Amino acid sequence: MTEDWLRAPAALPDADSAELAAAHQGRLTKPAGALGGLETLAVRLAGLQRRSQPAADRVWITVFAADHGVAAAGVSAFPQAVTAQMVANMAAGGAAISVLAQALGAELELVNLGTVAEVPAHPRVRDALIAPGTADFTQGPAMADAELAEALAAGADAVARAQAQGADLFIGGEMGIGNTTAATAVACALLDARPAELVGPGTGLDAAGVERKAAVIEQALALHAGRLADPAAALACVGGFEIAALTGAYVACAQRGLPVLVDGFISTAAALVAARLCAGAEAWLLLSHRSAEPGHAAMLAALGGPTLLDLGMRLGEGSGAATAVPLLRLACALHNEMATFAQAGVAAGR
Amino acid sequence: MTEDWLRAPAALPDADSAELAAAHQGRLTKPAGALGGLETLAVRLAGLQRRSQPAADRVWITVFAADHGVAAAGVSAFPQAVTAQMVANMAAGGAAISVLAQALGAELELVNLGTVAEVPAHPRVRDALIAPGTADFTQGPAMADAELAEALAAGADAVARAQAQGADLFIGGEMGIGNTTAATAVACALLDARPAELVGPGTGLDAAGVERKAAVIEQALALHAGRLADPAAALACVGGFEIAALTGAYVACAQRGLPVLVDGFISTAAALVAARLCAGAEAWLLLSHRSAEPGHAAMLAALGGPTLLDLGMRLGEGSGAATAVPLLRLACALHNEMATFAQAGVAAGR
Repeated sequence: MTEDWLRAPAALPDADSAELAAAHQGRLTKPAGALGGLETLAVRLAGLQRRSQPAADRVWITVFAADHGVAAAGVSAFPQAVTAQMVANMAAGGAAISVLAQALGAELELVNLGTVAEVPAHPRVRDALIAPGTADFTQGPAMADAELAEALAAGADAVARAQAQGADLFIGGEMGIGNTTAATAVACALLDARPAELVGPGTGLDAAGVERKAAVIEQALALHAGRLADPAAALACVGGFEIAALTGAYVACAQRGLPVLVDGFISTAAALVAARLCAGAEAWLLLSHRSAEPGHAAMLAALGGPTLLDLGMRLGEGSGAATAVPLLRLACALHNEMATFAQAGVAAGR
Repeated sequence: MTEDWLRAPAALPDADSAELAAAHQGRLTKPAGALGGLETLAVRLAGLQRRSQPAADRVWITVFAADHGVAAAGVSAFPQAVTAQMVANMAAGGAAISVLAQALGAELELVNLGTVAEVPAHPRVRDALIAPGTADFTQGPAMADAELAEALAAGADAVARAQAQGADLFIGGEMGIGNTTAATAVACALLDARPAELVGPGTGLDAAGVERKAAVIEQALALHAGRLADPAAALACVGGFEIAALTGAYVACAQRGLPVLVDGFISTAAALVAARLCAGAEAWLLLSHRSAEPGHAAMLAALGGPTLLDLGMRLGEGSGAATAVPLLRLACALHNEMATFAQAGVAAGR
């Protein structure tokens, strides 16, 4: 593993800004703490953004897409051609993440790291093709080390673009038929859990399908057992290009000081890897929602967080994170625009 | 009790619109059910609004304010003058609900049903003064039946104004020092619960304060025991003007077919009364958030609902409901703007 940049520590949030923000919350015309999680969020963002008035106006969304060799094992309810079809749908504005990005006024870009079917050219789609999908990880590593490096770098490149555009917040999304299987395998490797504990229906497998998926992951974990202790090697063995790109993006965000809103099951697997590789990365990873995918709870617990939303979503694409953006915006508006007791001439509580 | 209008049944949601909306959700480019609660919300709103394309664009917020005689018993961390001061702060734009309404582009009106201190005239504040606060309900009924009727009517009037302006959604908020005590008493009467089960710190009582508050409610429930079986009489005995106005508003919304986003602890007490008085009202009452006030969970359970948010908020004013509005808007955007599998040329799952 030559990807030394991944091991550089995260930027440090600014304790002074967070402290000032917390004190400011205490002066606003409301009982102390009455805005609950919205207060915590505003204070945390103030520390991350190193400013007294946090913001979540400029939101950047990159969806990474790639296919998975393991799809051949019949681990998804959808055919593999859907990955490329959905990228085209995202570009055309018809997918959930497209509608959410439009509603939020967020930037949306799609990065194709390697779909089996071709994605028609579109201004929103960037080609960063590594290979037409990963290799089947029940037979060998999903990707070569050089491919892993490319995928990680594609993630960091997206963060550089986001920062160049002055983004307040980065959201990574993913599209890849078969990727709950890869994400579950990665999470099993990192959390030292059995597939049966973390596996779920993904896009809609029945009970027999879930059982088959668990067996496939079991087989892969046995095949790669010798390499799974290293988080980057685990990505190479049982991950996917888009999961690796998300990992690279999260590490880059943490190192460059750009707050991340982490999406659901697949994104959280990437966040787990990022947190293992890069000391202090968790501080930059805001957890947006708890997915209906059963294994998500254990992954979230390992990242130490409650989530902002728990709406039974399980779509991916970055859709859960996008849905949580208005909460950050309202938290910032309240923090920045409410009157203090002194300004409003309101008597404070005892 | 002469308020016969309260007992007329609720309007019926349109099952056809809901069914068409559910079928439409099944054709959108996502795994079936993958948007979780956002799908349920869009389908429910479609049924309530009798249209295939639900909307939450035009949001109307009325905050009802009034003082409470029981505040004399020392049940709040804040002095009673704060009720009027906060109404002025809401009007001036400095309160949480003001900031949220502004951020959402929602209409915000404030209805003063009776504060002890005077509220300076302001275009956003409507005077509907009943009395300078309720009577201390540890000594007698909080209000006379005629006062209850006025408060209920003030709620229905707000709904008429909201509908005249073409509102898609009604939010009621409240302001009244001492009103978690009244709301807890009302909830105890309706749920046949002990004060110790439902009482909490409100705006910030310490443990001794919470104990005193429970004792005050216990005393009131004993005093009025003979009248508490009737939900409207319970409101008159141990409620408050703003709680009664919220009840009137919710019943009017249900009867006139305007969806409601219910706020937190105090609003949910009013929703419980509305549901008891008006058959079918629950269908119109969307539960926005679970408050940090410990008794809220039991009240929500009685209304049968999970909530959209659980952020540990406990501010009132309608702030929790307002915070949930973007979720309704995004649910509608997804429902109305996503492409179908056929439109996007995406293969459906098996």
